[in-house]
Amino acid sequence: MPEISSFPSPSAHPTSPAFSVKDLSDHIGGTVVGDSSRLIERCCGLESAGPKDISFVSNIKYLGQLSTTRAGCVVVGATLNHQSIYRPASSPLTLIKTADPYFGFRQIMVLIHGLRTHPKPLISPLCDIAPSAQIGNNCYIAPFVTIGENCKIGDRCVLYSGVQIMAGAQMESDCILYPNAVLYDFSRLGKRVIIQSGAVIGCDGYGFATHEGVHHKIPQAGNVVLCDDVEVGANTVIERAAMESTLIGEGTKIGNNVVVGHNCQIGHHNLLVSQVGMAGSSATGNYVVLAGQVGVAGHLRIGDHVRAAAQSGITSDIEAGRDIGGTPAMDFKLAKRVYLQMFQLPEIARRLRAVEAKLVDTKGNQKNE
Amino acid sequence: MPEISSFPSPSAHPTSPAFSVKDLSDHIGGTVVGDSSRLIERCCGLESAGPKDISFVSNIKYLGQLSTTRAGCVVVGATLNHQSIYRPASSPLTLIKTADPYFGFRQIMVLIHGLRTHPKPLISPLCDIAPSAQIGNNCYIAPFVTIGENCKIGDRCVLYSGVQIMAGAQMESDCILYPNAVLYDFSRLGKRVIIQSGAVIGCDGYGFATHEGVHHKIPQAGNVVLCDDVEVGANTVIERAAMESTLIGEGTKIGNNVVVGHNCQIGHHNLLVSQVGMAGSSATGNYVVLAGQVGVAGHLRIGDHVRAAAQSGITSDIEAGRDIGGTPAMDFKLAKRVYLQMFQLPEIARRLRAVEAKLVDTKGNQKNE
Amino acid sequence: MPEISSFPSPSAHPTSPAFSVKDLSDHIGGTVVGDSSRLIERCCGLESAGPKDISFVSNIKYLGQLSTTRAGCVVVGATLNHQSIYRPASSPLTLIKTADPYFGFRQIMVLIHGLRTHPKPLISPLCDIAPSAQIGNNCYIAPFVTIGENCKIGDRCVLYSGVQIMAGAQMESDCILYPNAVLYDFSRLGKRVIIQSGAVIGCDGYGFATHEGVHHKIPQAGNVVLCDDVEVGANTVIERAAMESTLIGEGTKIGNNVVVGHNCQIGHHNLLVSQVGMAGSSATGNYVVLAGQVGVAGHLRIGDHVRAAAQSGITSDIEAGRDIGGTPAMDFKLAKRVYLQMFQLPEIARRLRAVEAKLVDTKGNQKNE
Repeated sequence: MPEISSFPSPSAHPTSPAFSVKDLSDHIGGTVVGDSSRLIERCCGLESAGPKDISFVSNIKYLGQLSTTRAGCVVVGATLNHQSIYRPASSPLTLIKTADPYFGFRQIMVLIHGLRTHPKPLISPLCDIAPSAQIGNNCYIAPFVTIGENCKIGDRCVLYSGVQIMAGAQMESDCILYPNAVLYDFSRLGKRVIIQSGAVIGCDGYGFATHEGVHHKIPQAGNVVLCDDVEVGANTVIERAAMESTLIGEGTKIGNNVVVGHNCQIGHHNLLVSQVGMAGSSATGNYVVLAGQVGVAGHLRIGDHVRAAAQSGITSDIEAGRDIGGTPAMDFKLAKRVYLQMFQLPEIARRLRAVEAKLVDTKGNQKNE
Repeated sequence: MPEISSFPSPSAHPTSPAFSVKDLSDHIGGTVVGDSSRLIERCCGLESAGPKDISFVSNIKYLGQLSTTRAGCVVVGATLNHQSIYRPASSPLTLIKTADPYFGFRQIMVLIHGLRTHPKPLISPLCDIAPSAQIGNNCYIAPFVTIGENCKIGDRCVLYSGVQIMAGAQMESDCILYPNAVLYDFSRLGKRVIIQSGAVIGCDGYGFATHEGVHHKIPQAGNVVLCDDVEVGANTVIERAAMESTLIGEGTKIGNNVVVGHNCQIGHHNLLVSQVGMAGSSATGNYVVLAGQVGVAGHLRIGDHVRAAAQSGITSDIEAGRDIGGTPAMDFKLAKRVYLQMFQLPEIARRLRAVEAKLVDTKGNQKNE
Repeated sequence: MPEISSFPSPSAHPTSPAFSVKDLSDHIGGTVVGDSSRLIERCCGLESAGPKDISFVSNIKYLGQLSTTRAGCVVVGATLNHQSIYRPASSPLTLIKTADPYFGFRQIMVLIHGLRTHPKPLISPLCDIAPSAQIGNNCYIAPFVTIGENCKIGDRCVLYSGVQIMAGAQMESDCILYPNAVLYDFSRLGKRVIIQSGAVIGCDGYGFATHEGVHHKIPQAGNVVLCDDVEVGANTVIERAAMESTLIGEGTKIGNNVVVGHNCQIGHHNLLVSQVGMAGSSATGNYVVLAGQVGVAGHLRIGDHVRAAAQSGITSDIEAGRDIGGTPAMDFKLAKRVYLQMFQLPEIARRLRAVEAKLVDTKGNQKNE
């Protein structure tokens, strides 16, 4: 699609040291098929990978690309019948087979590229920290960060420029807050929480009591609690509770521009993809997946392991284990059949008219349209 | 759902002084049923409330919980037949009856917990205020705030850290801008306007004139006007007008991650819930409610008191007083019937095929599928 | 709709010098009908324009307003039959006719009001620029901006207050970044790129490998590239690629609160309207238009000149040149017919029951409901 030939090629990370295919395979407990001495420098998508790049296939949909890829090595599932893949004799594939190729490739990415590195510990003289705030050891606190009264910042936290921490907020160790993220007062973060830029944690819940034509603000006296290993995407908003806490369970990952309403209780290890919206006081179990732009009405219960397709509108409680889709959300298999028939609606209407016309002919009655 | 037993319990607000049930009832002009001397320290949700907590029921859907709640007192509607509620003799309910229990409870919340308190008036030496800007009395202006040339800030305004006010913007008294909120040039705020973190008021409208394959930016020479008592949620965006003003009427409350396009005219006391999107030049009357994720196309008129269900897609003018839902938006009652039938579509298709087959049998004709 | 009579009238831009209708017409190569000596001071919408204002009509839907407008001059299409418009003899219309009246009016807006002016070149002593960063000539860098190690800022760039540029990011000349915009490390911006407030460019992509019940973060080692003349709306998020680059092609304009997932490849001159969400690794051709709240699933290809109606849900590849709508997205003309029938669904169900009942009558069988 678009050409960027005239644009300087990006090089987000410095050139990595080379690893042999054998090294990489051993790292993930895999099995090499092909040339195990080949040197690999970079992870790359299958389509654009070259001879020094490693790539992966975890979805059978993309297996066909194995015939044409120029990648130096590809991580694949342990059960792949690699002899069924056509390759010219002059460019045999080198594969690493492993039970979970997506996770295996992730491990190799961490080995070659590493997770992001952060500046060395430092408290900038250009930040503003309240005298009563407690700052742990080995933190990096950038310019133009503010930390309010009575805050506690755990060891090794990284607070990038423009992060604003209001009074009474606390975070445990190893949290990373990217530029311009905001924590309102009394927010609580567990260990290793990551907040991307512009995310707002703990703003007032949307609560108004309408009386004699005026919407009166209801005090939002609760807070937000993010448990260990939560990640919150850029420009996402998590409202503080009116009373008690809005809670995001351990290991849950939230995308960008998501809104979680006040008093929601999100379980452990959920995935809330970008632009999901949850109204107030709804709760999810563990391992729930809400795909992009899903909306959830207020005061609902969504059971463990529920998966909702993108743009679903959830308007009632959902039992554990169900896959759902559509608006209002229904069983996912039903949704697919419903949408298939929806495309046929004009035709269904035409056929119904034809049937009615035939019945009139048959019976000599007026048709009832 | 998720357990947070291992997480330190939040205490967002200091322990309140205790009030007797009688004090609280008198405060809202209510009537006590039960022990009016009981002491209450905190407002709390019905499910988790304990003996020193007050809670409320305003929706008959939750009346059943009155049999099991451990709350020390519950605010309920004046007409509730409390003798119909089963309670063991050992733990009788204490109730406060009032005509509008939701608003009554709100008044009690304000009494016990108060609305948020802000830092004492102070102009931080770490902010940057243009020489020509006028700052009212008793303002709090935090570190890393900028206020541009010719701005006017009214008395008692609170500008938290990282707030950016571009040249020529003005606000009247008692406004609160949370961390990292942005006002573009020439924005106008009335009295008591609240802007949550990350909201952007007055960025350029999305206006381009496409000519010979290039989208040319149209100057956005207007501004945004927020009338008295408007509240704008976190990371919400209100575009400035191309010409004249984008207007948000008095008392209107806007949720998070909402987008209001350039030249929209929003009436008084509207509720625009999180993630609503309004395209340019549309207008709403007074007391309009747009629930979460509703989309409104451009150049439309939505009458007074219209209420649109979540995720509705509004593509035409809507008369005053209507309740609507669905995409494209239709009468709400019709929408409910339509969606009910939508679930049946595969069955409708099957039955239509059956009818067609019978007609073929009856008449000996080919069916017309 | 709402009244703002009690609110001070905004005057976002100073009074412009007056231009004669002839001057304006000559500026855009138009033809005057009426009084070419009339003086014009301001651009304005047709409804509120007065005798010193110029307005425009580019959509025949609004031609009727030409009978009542009080505008001093109106820019219209070259082929308009102006003699067919009824006007009282006492207030004849003055028109400028031109082939592309929307673009012509835009040219007049630029002449009268200008595009936004920015502060004079200056590097504030209150910003924080890493020693290794390179800053071009004649830049404006406001207070509380940070620029990380090894960044390159081209000539004449404007960085408003609170902008955060992480290490290794680069931009070419004449870029404008509004308050509190964020560029993550290694982002690349071409010439004349505009980033509205709160937009986040290059945050981590939403990538996790789930293994034994834990979502493991996948390194996001790529970056974001915005080509020349791209504009990004307020609080929009563009994720960095896991590997290689997320790319936004030349001249593409993105609205507010949009999310573009990691590794997307957006073509040239696209229009992505507010609240659009694109999942990872999808690609668009050139001149694609995605209207408000459109969702695009991952790994899709959308061809040149495709236009998707607001709230569409795109779940499969779309061929070049198609207009689409609905969820799942279908041909736009079909979508209109489908939605028309959807309104009729309760009626279709009733008629089907009636047909079934008649067949039972006719044949004496049980109906098969």
